[in-house]
Amino acid sequence: MVTSHDVARLAGVSQPTVSRALRDSPKVSELTRLRVREAATALGYVPSDTGRALSVGRTHRVGLLVTDLANQFYTHTIAPMHHALESLGYQLVLHTEASDTGRVADRLLSNSLDGVLLATTATDSLLPVRLRDRGMPFVYFNRRASAVEADSVEVEARSGMRELTERILALGHRRVGAVLGPANASTASNRELILRSTLATAGVTVPDELAFRGGFDFATGYAGAHRLLEQDDPPTVIVCANDVVAYGALNAARELGREVPGDVSITGFDNLPEASWPLLQLTTVAFDLEAMARRAASLMVDRLTFGPGEPYRHEWFPSHLVERSTLGPPSR
Amino acid sequence: MVTSHDVARLAGVSQPTVSRALRDSPKVSELTRLRVREAATALGYVPSDTGRALSVGRTHRVGLLVTDLANQFYTHTIAPMHHALESLGYQLVLHTEASDTGRVADRLLSNSLDGVLLATTATDSLLPVRLRDRGMPFVYFNRRASAVEADSVEVEARSGMRELTERILALGHRRVGAVLGPANASTASNRELILRSTLATAGVTVPDELAFRGGFDFATGYAGAHRLLEQDDPPTVIVCANDVVAYGALNAARELGREVPGDVSITGFDNLPEASWPLLQLTTVAFDLEAMARRAASLMVDRLTFGPGEPYRHEWFPSHLVERSTLGPPSR
Repeated sequence: MVTSHDVARLAGVSQPTVSRALRDSPKVSELTRLRVREAATALGYVPSDTGRALSVGRTHRVGLLVTDLANQFYTHTIAPMHHALESLGYQLVLHTEASDTGRVADRLLSNSLDGVLLATTATDSLLPVRLRDRGMPFVYFNRRASAVEADSVEVEARSGMRELTERILALGHRRVGAVLGPANASTASNRELILRSTLATAGVTVPDELAFRGGFDFATGYAGAHRLLEQDDPPTVIVCANDVVAYGALNAARELGREVPGDVSITGFDNLPEASWPLLQLTTVAFDLEAMARRAASLMVDRLTFGPGEPYRHEWFPSHLVERSTLGPPSR
Repeated sequence: MVTSHDVARLAGVSQPTVSRALRDSPKVSELTRLRVREAATALGYVPSDTGRALSVGRTHRVGLLVTDLANQFYTHTIAPMHHALESLGYQLVLHTEASDTGRVADRLLSNSLDGVLLATTATDSLLPVRLRDRGMPFVYFNRRASAVEADSVEVEARSGMRELTERILALGHRRVGAVLGPANASTASNRELILRSTLATAGVTVPDELAFRGGFDFATGYAGAHRLLEQDDPPTVIVCANDVVAYGALNAARELGREVPGDVSITGFDNLPEASWPLLQLTTVAFDLEAMARRAASLMVDRLTFGPGEPYRHEWFPSHLVERSTLGPPSR
């Protein structure tokens, strides 16, 4: 079988140049393009859909790597991402994170993807390093690892988290609990930092016994709220790492017969569609998740279209407090 | 490049046997498996995805066609389906249904998929016909179209729906409303039929003014419950086409200040994880959705492995009533 390496040898160029030339990349001179096309024709090199995947590296498939497909956050992310990619001529291939970074990287690299949207939570993962070393383009979604630069979309959490925390303080809360996200997630540590620094302006802290740490999931919120509310001196408010965690906390409060916000206030982050359900009415921090998901898709396609030479883009989506019914004054 | 045919020659087996052996299929004896693995190792055969696509016509990608990615039903379907496929060496590629059947079929056929899991709702779609005519294997998930036979997994809804309806009658409900699913969905029409025929045994009907028809979504349940509950003579119970519809109905009831089940009972179908939330406590009909999703994945892989000659398999998952807190006796 003729490969792009054969074409490269005959044309006297590198294999990546063959890829670029056959993709009509503007980075390749007209002369080189012609030479490559002649070599390809002479060798009978056919860039079939699958053949092209092997030879010039285009499959029009983009992987999405998530931590947990059953998490509502991803439900509301996948749909707009899928639609945006589809309208740009790309398919979305799902991948979930395993504990072993190496195996995930191998899967992503062996699966003939053009690029990967990284929506996993860990900032300490070696995955970005491995993807960069193997030349696989990727976009950070709602996260960023400092070790490797790449295009990114993130929430500008400061304004919304500060607004939320100031409202908590203004209502008179001083016994503040928190169900925090994973310690190695940039989003979680960022939100925690803003919460703590804003509370500190009023001399308020989240004491260790009122800080529960876990995943960004329902089970964490449920277990965390149980733990915090069953203490002798429970918090008057529980700040949750995100909405899904808050759903868990709200359900734990219901199960324990605690009124929200009468006995305890509970807040979220993300403003997912369920947050506005009349049955939940969650006070939370909002940003435009759909727009962010669509933007990640278009940054990915831009990167694939214009190549690795372009400067990286880091886009931020502003956040703000959305007041509903789960945050009120403390009852004690 | 070493292909599976080379491995087959060296091992003295057929090429399909190589595929099966390397996937650890139970249909291959331990001895054959070892012989094939030795041959593969000796030849340095690397089953890269794209290489496999070219050499044996396999991409190891399976499409999943759904109606609405943001629907919680699909959230809880995609995760187990993805995991089952991954463990069998396949990737899941997402597709959503557009209004134009022809375009969907073209997309599915042009995208180098090995097969498609059809989880869309319409039974009157031409899609199965087009897929069959072009030789694309597919499995019906939670639906079936009579025009074209294929492997299928479905809920055996009769037992659960009958149990639910009998319980509704036993509690004394006679003014029964329903938020029904799409008229062209086999699941919806089947559940409606069982509801009506079981009610008929007690001389009870769902009158036209208490039957609201729409999609399998939150908005339908919300709008439907508003419509039914704002009537002069509202129903004492609203039977919803599925859990997601029931979430919408429960939220409409809350918004209208109606107690559930005091003022109105509300029931679902599917028993999704949210149904057991202390805040919802939805009485519903349960079946093993995860097992059904995994089974669809393995039927798909079996079909791809053993070819079109095998007889079609139709698997049914039993259903039963799960009583929680949203169904009680009528207050009038």
